[in-house]
Amino acid sequence: MIWICFAIFLGACFAAGSTGGLFPPGAWYRDLRKPRWTPPNWLFPVAWSMLYLCMAAAGARVAVSADNALAMALWSLQIALNGLWTPVFFGLRRMRLGLGVLCALWLSVAATCAALWQVDWIAGVLFLPYLAWVSVAAALNFSVLRLNPDQAEGRTAGPA
Amino acid sequence: MIWICFAIFLGACFAAGSTGGLFPPGAWYRDLRKPRWTPPNWLFPVAWSMLYLCMAAAGARVAVSADNALAMALWSLQIALNGLWTPVFFGLRRMRLGLGVLCALWLSVAATCAALWQVDWIAGVLFLPYLAWVSVAAALNFSVLRLNPDQAEGRTAGPA
Repeated sequence: MIWICFAIFLGACFAAGSTGGLFPPGAWYRDLRKPRWTPPNWLFPVAWSMLYLCMAAAGARVAVSADNALAMALWSLQIALNGLWTPVFFGLRRMRLGLGVLCALWLSVAATCAALWQVDWIAGVLFLPYLAWVSVAAALNFSVLRLNPDQAEGRTAGPA
Repeated sequence: MIWICFAIFLGACFAAGSTGGLFPPGAWYRDLRKPRWTPPNWLFPVAWSMLYLCMAAAGARVAVSADNALAMALWSLQIALNGLWTPVFFGLRRMRLGLGVLCALWLSVAATCAALWQVDWIAGVLFLPYLAWVSVAAALNFSVLRLNPDQAEGRTAGPA
């Protein structure tokens, strides 16, 4: 059962992560002013692939444990928020709203990490790299927003 | 605990559903040829609001039950797929890919419904309207794709 759950949680990660391929950074992002410490583009899919494996493993370990209610509800919340950022930032190019989504994601990941830890400390540890990466992503979104204030609100008020 | 879980699952539904406000149908969708039985635009947010309440209630009931591993993993998968369709269809205007997402969503909702039912039949029943609505949405996506073959692949190969 734990392996079936791992595969399903990994499928949820893949669904959220597919937005990265559907809404690629492109020329708009390349031409933005970015901080010196911006990670190279190739690192993002590599990092997310590792994180997804950890997230799915954490979800599966806790799914087969008792008293997992809070952790399972929060795991669902964080994956729903995870899939939202890319369409907002790269699809709509709304950097300010993207930062709001990342802050909500950070809070949900921190809460999920804590709730997982209560059930199974290994699952909690598996969420720590994710929390660290979302912190970097939020700092990057904030810096790019600050360095490109004219681009903060996206291209159009309508659909992308 | 069940009410806290209900609120968190509802938050996950809201995160997925917020794509409906971020990527509105707009003039492009209005001008597409649509089948006679197309529901009016106002019905979609009303229907989804009802469905989200049912989905969150089903999630919370099963989260606080024993032997919920498969149901909880599948609940996460369906919400991740749920938030993907709107950016693909209304953001990228890729109707063919949108139909693929809806087929994956339908399968995940059917599997979640069955897994919830195994744990708590009321939770399974609460997912039936969702399965019915996704069936309607898939039929609509298919019809619109068939009636507008020139629009099937979206506007651009790049970002929306």
